[in-house]
Amino acid sequence: MDYDLIVIGSGPGGYVAAIRASQLGLKTAIIEKESLGGICLNWGCIPTKALLKSAQVFEYLNHSQDYGIKINGTGEVDFGAVIKRSRGVADGMSKGVQFLMKKNKIEVINGFGKLKSKGVVEVKLNDGSTKQITATSIILATGGRSRELPNIKQDGVKVIGYRQAMILPKQPKSMVVVGSGAIGIEFAYFYNSIGTKVTVVEYLDNIVPLEDEEVSRNLQRILKKQGINILTGANVESVDSTGELCKVNVKTATGMEVIEAEIVLSAVGISTNIEGIGLEELGVKTERGKVLVDDYYKTNIDGVYAIGDIVKGQALAHVASAEGIICVEKIAGQNPHPLDYNNIPGCTYCSPEVASVGYTEKAAKEAGYEIKVGKFPFSASGKASAAGAKDGFVKLIFDAKYGEFLGAHMLGYNVTEMIAEVVTARKLEATGHEIIKSVHPHPTMSEAVMEAAAAAYDEVIHL
Amino acid sequence: MDYDLIVIGSGPGGYVAAIRASQLGLKTAIIEKESLGGICLNWGCIPTKALLKSAQVFEYLNHSQDYGIKINGTGEVDFGAVIKRSRGVADGMSKGVQFLMKKNKIEVINGFGKLKSKGVVEVKLNDGSTKQITATSIILATGGRSRELPNIKQDGVKVIGYRQAMILPKQPKSMVVVGSGAIGIEFAYFYNSIGTKVTVVEYLDNIVPLEDEEVSRNLQRILKKQGINILTGANVESVDSTGELCKVNVKTATGMEVIEAEIVLSAVGISTNIEGIGLEELGVKTERGKVLVDDYYKTNIDGVYAIGDIVKGQALAHVASAEGIICVEKIAGQNPHPLDYNNIPGCTYCSPEVASVGYTEKAAKEAGYEIKVGKFPFSASGKASAAGAKDGFVKLIFDAKYGEFLGAHMLGYNVTEMIAEVVTARKLEATGHEIIKSVHPHPTMSEAVMEAAAAAYDEVIHL
Repeated sequence: MDYDLIVIGSGPGGYVAAIRASQLGLKTAIIEKESLGGICLNWGCIPTKALLKSAQVFEYLNHSQDYGIKINGTGEVDFGAVIKRSRGVADGMSKGVQFLMKKNKIEVINGFGKLKSKGVVEVKLNDGSTKQITATSIILATGGRSRELPNIKQDGVKVIGYRQAMILPKQPKSMVVVGSGAIGIEFAYFYNSIGTKVTVVEYLDNIVPLEDEEVSRNLQRILKKQGINILTGANVESVDSTGELCKVNVKTATGMEVIEAEIVLSAVGISTNIEGIGLEELGVKTERGKVLVDDYYKTNIDGVYAIGDIVKGQALAHVASAEGIICVEKIAGQNPHPLDYNNIPGCTYCSPEVASVGYTEKAAKEAGYEIKVGKFPFSASGKASAAGAKDGFVKLIFDAKYGEFLGAHMLGYNVTEMIAEVVTARKLEATGHEIIKSVHPHPTMSEAVMEAAAAAYDEVIHL
Repeated sequence: MDYDLIVIGSGPGGYVAAIRASQLGLKTAIIEKESLGGICLNWGCIPTKALLKSAQVFEYLNHSQDYGIKINGTGEVDFGAVIKRSRGVADGMSKGVQFLMKKNKIEVINGFGKLKSKGVVEVKLNDGSTKQITATSIILATGGRSRELPNIKQDGVKVIGYRQAMILPKQPKSMVVVGSGAIGIEFAYFYNSIGTKVTVVEYLDNIVPLEDEEVSRNLQRILKKQGINILTGANVESVDSTGELCKVNVKTATGMEVIEAEIVLSAVGISTNIEGIGLEELGVKTERGKVLVDDYYKTNIDGVYAIGDIVKGQALAHVASAEGIICVEKIAGQNPHPLDYNNIPGCTYCSPEVASVGYTEKAAKEAGYEIKVGKFPFSASGKASAAGAKDGFVKLIFDAKYGEFLGAHMLGYNVTEMIAEVVTARKLEATGHEIIKSVHPHPTMSEAVMEAAAAAYDEVIHL
């Protein structure tokens, strides 16, 4: 065998798995057909956060007077520079992964990897040639791509996916975003902030449909106030991109509506990259586009594992990384605990931000829990007042009987950072009173977590 | 008896205690000689955070080009507007406390309260008259004030304390800040950011001397780079404020130095407000300026309690609030746990921010622990790169033998929010591995906590 482990795909699932494998003494190779770091680093989490930071700075500039800062003149977005900065951040991170591979003595093979037979991977190298390599264990970590709907065919120019949306040659004057999950809402927020006229079309009744309804409703109200046009319960039936502007035909409760826009961004979820990687040839079982794995990510074929977007669970970078680590620790003979998919935080980095973990109020009730709900609005937070960030709230859900910490749902400035406390607390099986009695520093936004817990038990101070 | 409980002083100790008392069914009065909310709300935590937010917005404006935002013209600080905003935020919060008092049916008495005899408080009302009120329990929560050193006499105009520093009639061109604790450093940062020439003079060898030495050293380097002149191991021997500029005579390791500045801000800690409140008359025991209390804040005199800055423990708003709640719960017959003073976070809101809790590396060693230290720099964080906030690090300290989470020391953007996770984790007796296995959302600054824990156990991924 050439290696102990071959990882196919170098996204946050694959490259993290490879590093952990190297730490545990496995001779490891990783195969990547594009840039190290995968979608997350190059076309997802990281470059979008750079774009959103530019939008935030522009918003501060537009509202500087609120903070006592005067601008003699005007501020404007240099769209090319914003995109360039975003690409620079992504490239820097990808180079960082390159460094980590070298430091951990992981061989990087640039090409398209495919299961050939048990223990054998065939790589179509980027120079056109083919080679075969062998390993005791093979992890598939090939990730996902923008899902294409037949009625919203992407041409990559006027009807686009997230990838093109972060490198448009110029700022569009108008945009229709189809889908209001994290990706859709982040781009809608970004483009609206810098002056593009944005319409969001969501098929379901609520935007960010995975979130607690109260979060969704409040975010929708705030985004509308920011100027985003939002249609919910609305279906894009077709897109006509033959003219100068795209014509998006939307069916709403009240009838058909035609929305014109320079760009249509399709953000209706992802498809998994499971084609052409040898699954059928080896008989690796799949179901509805996902590779079937056990709690340690082993497929039905010995020595073949799968992690990340192509398996069960949330298609999120931190899930893929956690799965990669557990998978490799198990391969190396350790005894990791299976991942608790009910304790995975989800974040949307618009402004105000959205963050959540665990049961929504509705899901908790549906699961049969009798619940205590505590809510604390940032309008009652001293730090939020000082920061000029009074939108939103923290909502915590506890089991009324045993005090189990069932879920947290947050909307507001910086909540994507605040959710970590809840994840750790739930990991440690915290009760509401343990949160209440953890002395949070004053003045911080994080006090809202303590206060929301106190609200659930009628001990809230600042309400 | 007129009341079950009288609270003297309405800072974050007093007003929080009063609210909790009302929740627990105690008929409560609170006595305040100035504005509700005390120093914290009116002259401390809250208005300074408003000032610092203005500074942050100004910094974004000055560095907007880094984010792809162009300004055609110039930005400038409208000092009066910045101060006005800060006062508005403070006034709003004070009105909020007024609302909370009313809502909780707590009687507010405006005047100066003093223990008269057992169960009796004499109030010198603000209209000049005097009245006596009675209660079963009395909580002293009179707080602190800027400490005056004989060699830095405050005239309130050119040689000032924190109170005047947040309402100066105009922005000074130059300022000497004596003392580099949280208050000193926050004002130094604020005034330097908006263009005042600032010198910090610290008697000890390190700025923010309560913090871990590595945090202190790095913060000093960064603040110097921002343009603040910092003298450590330096003693202010005298201040001559007779001329147009103050002459500050500083003794350093290399000799005497004279620093000229428009304003001298004395930030050398606080004195406790224990004079004239009847302690001597009732025989309430004190020691070195602090009222002696048991674990539930009872003094040596039955029915008399003390909390906040005037007792043992850190003189911090969140400590006072926690003490107030415990004190009242005990009075009401509940069984609260005593406060763990080793799990109190401390924050300094300059930029980059400082946050810490528990043992420093030095203190842990001195306490006899064999330690594991894990550090993760924000330069290796994707979110920090995207946010343009690569300064600083998270450093975690664990007991090598039993895995106890001994302390956390953070320097960087937003760490004052990130420290809450550590406080809660320590409250729940987390081990390093439980932190490592709590899935932090990607990309966030909070991942650095997980990575620092992993670094302590040689499992760090991104280093």
